Parts: sequence; structure tokens; C-alpha cells
Amino acid sequence: MFQSLETCLEKYVPPEELGHVKRILYGKQLEELQLPELCTNNKENVEVKGYKFDSLVEELREKRIVRVGLIQNQIVLPTTAPLVEQRNAIYKKVGQIISLAAKANVNIICLQEAWSMPFAFCTREKFPWCQFAESVENGPSTTFLKEFCKQHNMVIISPILERDERDIIWNTAVVIDNLGNVIGKHRKNHIPRVGDFNESTYYMEGNTGHPVFETAFGRIAINICYGRHHPLNWLMFGLNGAEIVFNPSATIDGLSETLWGIESRTAAVANSYFSCAINRVGTEIFPAEFTSGDGKPAHKEFGHFYGSSYITAPDGSRTPGLSRTQSGLLISEMDLNLCRQIKDHWGFQMTQRLDLYAKSLDTIVNSTK
Amino acid sequence: MFQSLETCLEKYVPPEELGHVKRILYGKQLEELQLPELCTNNKENVEVKGYKFDSLVEELREKRIVRVGLIQNQIVLPTTAPLVEQRNAIYKKVGQIISLAAKANVNIICLQEAWSMPFAFCTREKFPWCQFAESVENGPSTTFLKEFCKQHNMVIISPILERDERDIIWNTAVVIDNLGNVIGKHRKNHIPRVGDFNESTYYMEGNTGHPVFETAFGRIAINICYGRHHPLNWLMFGLNGAEIVFNPSATIDGLSETLWGIESRTAAVANSYFSCAINRVGTEIFPAEFTSGDGKPAHKEFGHFYGSSYITAPDGSRTPGLSRTQSGLLISEMDLNLCRQIKDHWGFQMTQRLDLYAKSLDTIVNSTK
Repeated sequence: MFQSLETCLEKYVPPEELGHVKRILYGKQLEELQLPELCTNNKENVEVKGYKFDSLVEELREKRIVRVGLIQNQIVLPTTAPLVEQRNAIYKKVGQIISLAAKANVNIICLQEAWSMPFAFCTREKFPWCQFAESVENGPSTTFLKEFCKQHNMVIISPILERDERDIIWNTAVVIDNLGNVIGKHRKNHIPRVGDFNESTYYMEGNTGHPVFETAFGRIAINICYGRHHPLNWLMFGLNGAEIVFNPSATIDGLSETLWGIESRTAAVANSYFSCAINRVGTEIFPAEFTSGDGKPAHKEFGHFYGSSYITAPDGSRTPGLSRTQSGLLISEMDLNLCRQIKDHWGFQMTQRLDLYAKSLDTIVNSTK
Repeated sequence: MFQSLETCLEKYVPPEELGHVKRILYGKQLEELQLPELCTNNKENVEVKGYKFDSLVEELREKRIVRVGLIQNQIVLPTTAPLVEQRNAIYKKVGQIISLAAKANVNIICLQEAWSMPFAFCTREKFPWCQFAESVENGPSTTFLKEFCKQHNMVIISPILERDERDIIWNTAVVIDNLGNVIGKHRKNHIPRVGDFNESTYYMEGNTGHPVFETAFGRIAINICYGRHHPLNWLMFGLNGAEIVFNPSATIDGLSETLWGIESRTAAVANSYFSCAINRVGTEIFPAEFTSGDGKPAHKEFGHFYGSSYITAPDGSRTPGLSRTQSGLLISEMDLNLCRQIKDHWGFQMTQRLDLYAKSLDTIVNSTK
């Protein structure tokens, strides 16, 4: 299987031309982070990579350095195993990766969408999969992660399948702060109805707006999965003050791979913040067959989740992607002051003419009622 | 000088891996157009490339096939030559390229931003450069192009420096239909204030909104240059019904090259239309020195306009870019029905929640007054 675009380019393109290729495709060259040997050369066979984004030294503000970690993980057991075993196996594995991140002094971690379960929405089966849905405040995933937050002084974003007190299911990201407190949640704003992404069968559009969470390490927000196709979603998180926007996702090669490198990256540039694109990795096979609304025969496989998680800075420079085939941890060190530096440089906020667009959208919305 | 990303990848990456690289970077593989030998192997040494975008065959609508041509051209004479000679030399050259496009049965052509002059705004000099500013209705550029429109049954978009009847200067795209009539204009909505792009010194933000022009060959709009950094600008043209949005630009390698491949392409996907990114090509040197607001010594050179014009379909598939160093004509054949096919497939319009955003933007605008 094709491992990653970056590995391929590094292998074949000679150094001088490679410089041009990388400048065009990835922007300003990033320094690799020196990470502890224990972390990069781990016995769990997790790919660990680290990069440092550049920024200017200001005279009237200290740098605000943060280390962010993105985790992409394959499910561990087959989807036919007892659910509690499936979940515990994922907990064990993700716990190990979080511990690796702690060794590298990561401050904020974001996990992939619906991280504690297989991405079963392709099946359209409510049972058994809705059993994975859990409480934001005291479900097993929140309980599990709180300990890591406290132990390692870490903020963790935990995208789960939520079941609320009225038994309504949501696709939700829980934000747990570095003291182990749930400081808020965000419910996915845009729900796909494309191919095997039958998610509107399971949950509705989020009702939490575009919250930005003030943490000890910076102002963060979450744009869940399909929301990355919606520039207005990215925009609102920026207008509300986000400095880092995480995009925990689950998407497959046949559907979206050619869009993966451009949407989250364009959003970072347009909104002058850091964007973090996280994709599930691996191939998931389900017990019962399902159809995909494409006229083809029933089958049991969702397709390949291609990983390739990456981070983009407000100046458009980006890290290479993690592998397309392997669980991994991507670490980046960034100075949040870069957001304002780039706003001053490019001037996108100053030239944005929001009043014009507020009026235009209002007219459109009223004319189509 | 590095000729183009695509030439480099084709040269070094072996066929099987190249397939993966292209699928990730360019989407669905495009067929090359068979163009007349006279056209591709021309004596003017203009690079001519042609591609065909794929679409489904519908049963209840005929295909709506259009051929679009993008022209990127170097200026011909030095910027020290008499202005009328500079302009006539460009007219001659661009006229030749339009004739090549006519041989390939192109229906709609778009020229680069301020195509009939050097991009002199880096100098901050009003004289002599504002002399190039001209009337939309009957300036020399409109008069020159009308003849080609009539002769070849072609729509031409002509981005010029406009001088209106009150002697106000604008950055404007003129739309001339296939009968040679000016059917409208669009004035650049977002004006840069970055590096040598001192354009706010010359003209103000456009006052023409987001018009979409109904032509014999489809509904078209123009997002001029820096407007490509503004997702709301792209969005409004889509909401107003555009099927093809042209982005005539002038931008240089030190500033924006790493963003070039992602912004226009993301817009095509987010708004389910074809986007056409056109960049000026070549290096322009001015008679008097100027500074760039970056603490560096005065100099006379703007930097390298890197060409690389390309077209993206609503499904994200894109053509390779034209050369970074040479004048060129990029032709694409497309079925405009693909816009609606992709809207049905991805559902971005249905899931867009415009009412939510109209309300949110309104709140933001009112709270920051």
C-alpha cells in the first residue's frame, strides 16, 4: 500500500528540485523536533513525528509556545468482538500513545473522530453500535482521559459518540482541561449524507454554535470532520477568537483524499490560525453486509481510512502527513503569536468586509424562504 | 529556473507511484485534449495545453459542453519603453494567443489581471502608470477585444485598470459577450496591502457586489486576485449562481506560491463550480527604485510572477499548471452539468446552514461597531 506522499517524494526527487517541490507544496521549511528516543523508537510501533513552526521574536510580547499532539489510531480488535473488549483494547492503545506524547511534553492532544469505537455508520444499524454512545460528563471515555489530563498537565479533546440525558445521539467533541475538568463540548455542525457516511441517520446538526475554549495553553476550537468542507464553519471559529482549530475526522481514500491536503490548510490561511487535520487510519470490516447507494453489490468493508494527519500554520506552512497505513502521533511546537503576526502581514481580517457579507447572506436567506 | 511542479514529478517519480501522487495532488485523472497541431506547435512559442473534465451522462438533460481558455502572458517590452508601444506590443502578443484559442474552438477566454500593462503598483508612482487606466465601455482594450469576440463567437473577460467618468481608478474585469457587447463589469472586492502590493494606493474596494453574468456558454463570475484569499467572496459568487469563476491574478513566488494550488481549488470544491486560476508570468523591472516595507534596500524588481495557471472542477480534479516561466494558453473542456451532479453527490449546499451563519455574522458585525 502507498505509504505517504512525502515518503515517495523524498525517495525519488533529487535534493535541489525537492527543495522547490516542498516550498510549493508545504511552504516554509520546518525544523524537525528533537524528541526523546523512548518516544520515537517505541515498542508499540507507533509512528511519532515532530516539527517546529517558525515565528518572529516580538519586543512587546513574550512568545507563547505550545506543543500540540494529534493521534490517529487503528481500531485494535475485529468489529465482531464483544463491544467492551473492542473499547478496552482501543483505550489501552490510545493510552500508550498519550503516554508517548507526555514524554514529549505535549500540552494539548486531540484524538480522532469517534475515537473509542469503529466508524460503524456505514452499516445504518442502530444496534449494536449505538451502545457506544456515552455521556460527555461521566461516560467511560471522559473518565478514562481525565486521569491523563491530571497526571500530565494536559488538555485533551475527545471526540465521542454522545448520548445525552434525553437519549439523543450527537457527534461531539469533549474538552477536558489540564486539571481533569470537562470545560465544554462542541457538537458537529454539518452532518454528511454522502456515500457510506450515513450519519444523518444517527444524529442531527449540532446545537452548540461555534464555541472557542480558553485553556491554559491557548484558545482552541473543534471543527468536526465534514465541517471542514464548509468555509463558514472555519470562519466562525476564527471570528470567535480561536488560535488552534482541530479537525478530528474519519474519511476514506475513494471519497476525499485529493481534498485532504487543501481544505484544512486553506482554512488556516484564510483565518490566520493553526489548523490540525486528524484522520482515522486503517480498514474496518463489519459483520453484516451493507450497500453504499452507488448501485454496486453489498459488501462489508468501509474502505481505507488514509490517516495522513497534518498541521498547518497561519502562514500556510504545513507539516508532512503521518502515514496512510499506521497509527501515529504528530507533534508540533508552535508560537501562538504567529496568528497575529500573519494577520498584520496578510491583512485578511482588515480587508474582510464582513458587513457586506452579513448583509448579502441575510438577503439570500430571506429570499429563499 | 524551476519550470513547474508537474514537469518535475513526471520526470522523477516512477509510473506506479506517480499514479498515487497525482491522485492525491490532482484528483481524478483528466484526458488530454486533442488540439490542432497549428495551435500546440505555434511559432509564437506559447505553451498550449488542453484537458477534458469528466462528467456523468444524464437522461433528462443534455450535456452542456464549454471550452474555456486561460491566458498568462509576459509583458513584451521593457517598462522604460513609451507606454503606447508597451501596450501595443502586449496587444499584438495576446491577440496571437487569442487566435490560437480560436483555432481550438474556445468559447470563453479570461486574461490575466491588468493584462494590458506592467503590474506597476509596487512603485507607488501614480505617474506615468495611471495613464494605462481606461474606460470599460470604449477604452482601447475593450475596443481591441470586441473584434475577436465577434469574429470567433467568443466571450472574453478583460481585467483592466479602469478609469471611470469621475476619474476614479478601479481594478475591473470587463465582460464582453460573443456578439462583441460589453455585458457588464466587476470591480475587485478585496484590495491587498501586503509587501509590494500597494494597491490600496491606487483604487478602493469594488462597489459592484458579486455579479454573475449569463452568457451564451454558461453563468460566469470573476473573483479578482487577492479576493481568492477570501472564502466569503468565493461563496457569494456561488450563491448567486456562477458555474465558472475566474480568478485573474498577479502574484509572485516569494509571497504566495505555496497557497496558489490550494485556495482556488478549495473554492471550486466548497462551492461546486469550476474555478480558473490565472497568474501573470515573468519578472518585471521598473525604471525607478522602490522599497517593499520589509526593511530591505530599495530595488527595481517586483519579483517573479510564477504563472502556473490551472483549472479545477467541482469534484476537486484539476489540470496541471501552465509553466512558471513562459506565456501560455490553458484550455479545458467541461460539462457544466457537473456542478449540479457534485452538489447532489457531496450535498454541501443542502448542509450549509446559511441561516445560522447569516445570523452569526450579523451578530459579529453589530458587536464590533
